[in-house]
Amino acid sequence: MARRLLLLSNSSTAGMSYLEHAQEPMREFLGTPPTTVLFVPYAAVRFGYDDYAAKVRAVLEAIGHRLISIHDAPDAVGAVLKAEAVAVGGGNTFHLVRELQERELLEPIRDRALQGMPFIGWSAGSNIACPTLRTTNDMPIVEPRSFRCLDLIPFQINPHYLDAHPDGHMGETREERIQEFLVVEPDRYVVGLREGSTLRIEGDDIQLIGEKPMRVFKQGEEPLEVGPGEAPTFLLD
Amino acid sequence: MARRLLLLSNSSTAGMSYLEHAQEPMREFLGTPPTTVLFVPYAAVRFGYDDYAAKVRAVLEAIGHRLISIHDAPDAVGAVLKAEAVAVGGGNTFHLVRELQERELLEPIRDRALQGMPFIGWSAGSNIACPTLRTTNDMPIVEPRSFRCLDLIPFQINPHYLDAHPDGHMGETREERIQEFLVVEPDRYVVGLREGSTLRIEGDDIQLIGEKPMRVFKQGEEPLEVGPGEAPTFLLD
Repeated sequence: MARRLLLLSNSSTAGMSYLEHAQEPMREFLGTPPTTVLFVPYAAVRFGYDDYAAKVRAVLEAIGHRLISIHDAPDAVGAVLKAEAVAVGGGNTFHLVRELQERELLEPIRDRALQGMPFIGWSAGSNIACPTLRTTNDMPIVEPRSFRCLDLIPFQINPHYLDAHPDGHMGETREERIQEFLVVEPDRYVVGLREGSTLRIEGDDIQLIGEKPMRVFKQGEEPLEVGPGEAPTFLLD
Repeated sequence: MARRLLLLSNSSTAGMSYLEHAQEPMREFLGTPPTTVLFVPYAAVRFGYDDYAAKVRAVLEAIGHRLISIHDAPDAVGAVLKAEAVAVGGGNTFHLVRELQERELLEPIRDRALQGMPFIGWSAGSNIACPTLRTTNDMPIVEPRSFRCLDLIPFQINPHYLDAHPDGHMGETREERIQEFLVVEPDRYVVGLREGSTLRIEGDDIQLIGEKPMRVFKQGEEPLEVGPGEAPTFLLD
């Protein structure tokens, strides 16, 4: 499989500027020749697509690449078909998926990504690389046609994975929520991707970038901590 | 409108036993003559319906009432049609809604509740009293047919409403998530119901029970803190 994916937990890390922790992984992933990245801003809800694209453009230009935003393209499907790379930003996963479905964009993005077009996603953008959106943390503010996503990898990501439990909160912990998912989907792995962590997937190779381990869940098994040096290729089986 | 609703944020409060903070509001709501409450355990995912029903039965019996669980009824719709009261427990809202839809139970429960049959819900059970599940905090572990719920009240509840933000978490705060909802649904009120809080709604009267205020959100307005003594009837307009 020719896929090339860079999947980040999040865009903002305490004490760093927007996507700062992602610049080095993105630079290595995109390589030296300037790439024009097609940006997908549809996860944005509380801010406009123009502002979102401008913010990400500044980050990409700083590492020698260019950005065009799909919301500016007269033909969105056509823009995907000729994109050199696609980057999908974070925000609300339900909003993102609904917008992609309404514009019939999931299939063309999937086809191109499986053919090897570089795909970058963070937060909601990483969620949609999974089979479904069913391990998002986001609020279901809009109703997509279906929970199915790009299915570029066989496991589910839980971005912003968090060990802590806020004081006084009596709802389910993050781990409990993931375990609920595993009850209904016992054959699926779920990767809890902590803040600042990135997964780089090249064909059948997978690499964790960042300082923290990721937490891997499967029904009936003890959760597994997988460190940045390890190669958890079982996730891609 | 004849509706009689008791909607709780949560079942467990720090330092208290299961539903302990709910016993007094439930006792007052159900009144003196012993009521047989039809329990809906379908939000349970990580534990069985039998265990769930047993736990809630103990609570109801302690205040002089009885419980039968809908999962034990040979005819679930028939059980709703003759129920003296319905109580819907917490767990996963998506699971609850999917189970209710598959059994065609939303409409009969709605009809009975609008005719005055007492309805009690906590956490996911409160969420489904709203027009949709779109302000739940739960993970979308299963895909319901639709996000539409019982629509017994015109506003949305966010249960387990939390002011704090866990350390190191860079995802959206709860207030930001609610504000995303308001962007796409600007005419709707959202009530952030803090742990230990209960809404009692009798026809067109609404009363907040508990020690904490609730936080009321509307697009373009400053969030409003409404205390237990106040009567926010505008929510029911």
